[in-house]
This record gives sequence, C-alpha cells and structure tokens, in this order.
Amino acid sequence: MEECTQMKGKQSLLFKNPPYIQHTACIAGKKEGEGPMGHLFDEVNEDPMFGMTSWEEAESRLQELTLGKLLKKSGLTAGEIRYIFAGDLLGQLIGTTFGLMNYDIPMFGLYGACSTMGESMALAAMCVAGNYANRVVALASSHFASAEKQFRFPLEYGNQRPLSATWTVTGCGSVVIGKEKNTVKVAGITTGKVVDYGVKDSMNMGACMAPAAADLIYANFMDLGVDQDDYDMIITGDLGLVGQTILFDLMKDKGYDISKKHMDCGIEIFDDKTQDTHSGGSGCGCSALVLCSYVIKQLEKKRWNRVLFLPTGAMLSPVSFNEGKSVPGIAHGIILESE
Amino acid sequence: MEECTQMKGKQSLLFKNPPYIQHTACIAGKKEGEGPMGHLFDEVNEDPMFGMTSWEEAESRLQELTLGKLLKKSGLTAGEIRYIFAGDLLGQLIGTTFGLMNYDIPMFGLYGACSTMGESMALAAMCVAGNYANRVVALASSHFASAEKQFRFPLEYGNQRPLSATWTVTGCGSVVIGKEKNTVKVAGITTGKVVDYGVKDSMNMGACMAPAAADLIYANFMDLGVDQDDYDMIITGDLGLVGQTILFDLMKDKGYDISKKHMDCGIEIFDDKTQDTHSGGSGCGCSALVLCSYVIKQLEKKRWNRVLFLPTGAMLSPVSFNEGKSVPGIAHGIILESE
Repeated sequence: MEECTQMKGKQSLLFKNPPYIQHTACIAGKKEGEGPMGHLFDEVNEDPMFGMTSWEEAESRLQELTLGKLLKKSGLTAGEIRYIFAGDLLGQLIGTTFGLMNYDIPMFGLYGACSTMGESMALAAMCVAGNYANRVVALASSHFASAEKQFRFPLEYGNQRPLSATWTVTGCGSVVIGKEKNTVKVAGITTGKVVDYGVKDSMNMGACMAPAAADLIYANFMDLGVDQDDYDMIITGDLGLVGQTILFDLMKDKGYDISKKHMDCGIEIFDDKTQDTHSGGSGCGCSALVLCSYVIKQLEKKRWNRVLFLPTGAMLSPVSFNEGKSVPGIAHGIILESE
Repeated sequence: MEECTQMKGKQSLLFKNPPYIQHTACIAGKKEGEGPMGHLFDEVNEDPMFGMTSWEEAESRLQELTLGKLLKKSGLTAGEIRYIFAGDLLGQLIGTTFGLMNYDIPMFGLYGACSTMGESMALAAMCVAGNYANRVVALASSHFASAEKQFRFPLEYGNQRPLSATWTVTGCGSVVIGKEKNTVKVAGITTGKVVDYGVKDSMNMGACMAPAAADLIYANFMDLGVDQDDYDMIITGDLGLVGQTILFDLMKDKGYDISKKHMDCGIEIFDDKTQDTHSGGSGCGCSALVLCSYVIKQLEKKRWNRVLFLPTGAMLSPVSFNEGKSVPGIAHGIILESE
C-alpha cells in the first residue's frame, strides 16, 4: 500500500513530508541557569515562585511565560497556533491547564511523565505532516519544588537525597512545529511502550527508565535498519549517571555499544561536582530545556546531522508507589535532522 | 492549499478519508449494570475490586479486562494494534499505565479529565486518517472509588453528597479505529480549549464543564456552518442535570436552542430516582460506556445518521482545588456518521 509507506516496523514512522522545527523558546530556573548550559537558555528566572504564591502556580506561570516568549520570538500570535500539545508532571496537569488557558488555543493534554516533550513533539509532528495544521506548539515543563512536594517530601523536611537521586529541573521548553521549510526537521518518530523491570525505588528514577530507553533505541534500530553509527548523537532525557550505566549494559546485551554516541540531558544540564545534583537532572523540563538550547543549536550549525532524541519517563505515582507498586518507564523517540 | 482542506475554521477538521469505528468493547461496574443501559454493556463486573487489592489496581484491571474483551470481540491480536491512545482520571495515569502495559502496544498517554474518550478518539482518528496506522485503539476509564478517594473524601467517611454532585462511573470503554470500511465513521473533530468561568465547587462538576461544552458546540457550529438541525443528537459526556440546564442557557445566549437535540451520557447512565446518583454520572468511563453501547448501536441501526459526541472534562485537581483555584473545563468533540 503506497499510502502506508510512512510506517516502519512495529513502532516507527518516517514522514513523507517531514515537518520542521520553526522556533524554540525555553525558560529555566536559577539553578539551571548556573549550570553548564545556563548561557544557552532564552531566559533564566531568578525567582523560584515566578511571582506567584504556590509552587503549582509557579509552574503554571513558567509555562505561561515560556509560551509568551515563544510567540514573541517567532512573531506569531496565539491565533496562528492551531493546536498545542502539552503536559507536565503534576496530577491532572494543573501546570498546563492553568498555565496555558489564557492563550485560548485548542489543546491536547498529555501525560508521559518526563517523556512528555517526546510525546508532544511526536503528536505535533504527526499533526502537521498529516495536514491537520500548518503550525502547532509542543511544550513541557517541570518545577523542582512542585515535583518534590508531589512525589517525595515537602522541601521543608530537608530530607537527605541518596546519590542515585536526580534533581527535578525547573524549566519549560517549547517548539513551534510547522510545514514551512527550516533548518531542522522531524524526520520520524519511534513511539514507546510502557516497560516495567520491577524497580521500586523512587530515589532511583534512572534505573526505572533505562529499560524503556533501551527498548526504544532497539526498536528504532530494528524498525529502520540502523544502528548507533547512523546517528551523530542518541540523546536520552534524564537517565542520569546511574541510568546511563544501566542503559549501556542493556544495549550491550542486545549487541550494541552506544557509549560513544550517547548523551543524557540530565547529565549535561547540571555540574554534579559543584551543584550537588547527584545522578543528574530530571523532569519534563530537563530534556525540553536541553532540546530548545544545546541540541537545536548543534543541528542548526550542522555539527550534528541526525540525532535520536528520546525523553524518558518514569511512571512514578505517589499513590501506586506507597501501595508497593513498581515504577514502570516509557520513552518517546524523535528523529531530528538538519537540512 | 489543496492539502489543507481538512481544516475547518479555528478548531475543526473534516477528514478527507474518514476512519471507521471497527469494534467496541466496554465493561461496567455493578451499579452501572443496574442502570437503564446495563443490558447494553458487553460485561458487568459485580466485584468493585475487580479481584485486586486496591482501588487503583481495580481500575487498572478494569482497563486490562476491557482491552482483552476488545481484542477477543474483534479477533485481533495486540500486535495488530499499532498505537493505543488512553487515559484515566488518576494522577500520573496509573490506571492506564498498569492496566495496559502487559499488552506491549506503543502508547500515547492522555489527560483530558472526563473528556479523555473524546481526546483519545480525536487523536486516534487523526492518526489513522493521516496514514500512520491501519488500526489503533482509543480507551478511557474511571472508577467510582479511586476517583472519590483522590478527588474528594475516602469512602469510609460516608460523607453527604449535595444534589449537584455527580456519581463517578465505574467503567471502561474502548474502540478500534481503522481504515477498513464499516458502518460508523469518524467524519471530523472539533478540539476544545480550556474554558474557565471561575467555578470553585468540586461538588458541582456540571457547572464547571458546561461553559466548555457550550464553547465547543458553538465552535463546531461556526467552523462547519451548521447548527443543531444538522445533527440527530448532540451528546455531552457528564454534565448531569445541573450542567445540562446551564448548557441550554449558555447556548440560548448564543442564539441556539439545542434542548430537543441534546442528550447527556451522565443523565442517561443512571436512574437518579432509584439509584441515588443526584445530578448524574461522571468520569471518563461515563461517556466511554454510553458511546460503546447505546450511541454506537443507534448509529449502526441508522436511527441516527450524524451525532456530535463531546465528552466533557473538569480539570479538578485536589491540590489546586485546596489552594483555592477554580475548576476549568475542556471538551473534545467527535462527529460520528453512519454509512
């Protein structure tokens, strides 16, 4: 069937008419601004409350400011964005609901834990390549304090964090994906499944997500008949130092050594030696920030020609975790190419 | 632009090659089984725990059983489903994550509160009509006890429910949407925005959602140049008796009397006189159950030829609610036609 040629293997698509990343915008918190990528973000906000009175409102305001920055940078009005695909980590997506509602844009709310930027870009690209829109936005955020409060302990407890723990990034990244030709295109996607290796440690998200990342990379290789040599970089979201080791081991078991081509946004966004972030950064905002700053720049400058960008999510819930359940993972892969 | 003719107005699409609803399956709880539509459900499970040990596991098991039923009824294997678009009401979608992971199907997790069945069907239809899949599943669930526990009070409190309150439906509905011709097609969609009228009453979800429903119906009318006379029925998800009154008033303000063409799944699923459900049923499972039983049958038998099905969601979060925020609403519209 001619019209079905976009489907590759069990989990991947290669777009016949790939959509382009037209514009990006990202806003980070103070700590992220002090990290190795701080100079690349569009804006660093020194106020962890973003001028609001609760952590949840702060995250909403962060989303609102980021979409505002995206519209300003792109010269677009909200009315020129046909859909927004967005999410955050908070129950019932309150970061997103309250953050974006004033823009009055038709919205698809998504939950993929920290893989949400991958999920939103995948659906956004499918939407544009399917001729359902000329221009859509994909966006994801996280906030250190709203996430710690929801998933672990109130900050006021001052609890000790084990070395396997990651630090939830305060940040929001957003992209306009559209038809009009530009320098970076979304060539294809590989969609993840929920993968559960039975890990039950909420302080070791890397171990929870590494199996999902390995599963997705392997599916991408199988579906497209490629391997690590076909990518300039394979970029996971927030496995951190602990999760990276596990990913390398799992990929070696499958016969692939990706260590020379691997980068993890969680490892890069903080300097663990000076910033006390232990295993690395995490949260939807982690991969979203690194994508909208460092990754896009490498592609625009053609230092990289093709990358597999796969934000990784740990389906951690305080309810299921406290009921003794494991923390399954999921990853959503996006193939980005420079033109 | 010829290829853009699927877009209609600001929020709607009419598919050039509409996908079809190939198969449906739904499983309901005991109380739903005793209601006016009980005889139409594929299965009624008498055990509120669905054989499990927590309410959250019960909801996961309900999803697992429903997808199993869908595969059995359709004669399909999980491997023949390219993607699943699914969600539930619980924080971090634990009903969905744990319920569906054993099927090993690439998944897009969605959160649209009780509008999730509309959101999942919209994206599923876009996916198939865009030639990204031959066959996908859209699914949504809710469970009375997991929802009450999360959003309001533990059941053990035995709290009084005001007359404006709705009763969260225990149920899961699922559809296979595919290319192959069948009797009911997804002709188009209208995608909702977050609409906030400032209502702060978690015991009156109908009032929170009615403005979003009115906004979506009006957008559908404007985008497509139609009105209530072009539909055999306009079917909201779970406004209940209170929300329905508000919807009629809001539509009258816009110049439309939809009262003769309106049906609300929440009003129909229970008999409020004998079942003590007050304003009606609610939850993702409410519209999903009614769609997969009564609505589909009316279309298959051509008693109706065209309906606008719009599950309605209240973006209620226990966190934002307790912080004094309002409860915004969203609706996702699907145009179903018989062939």
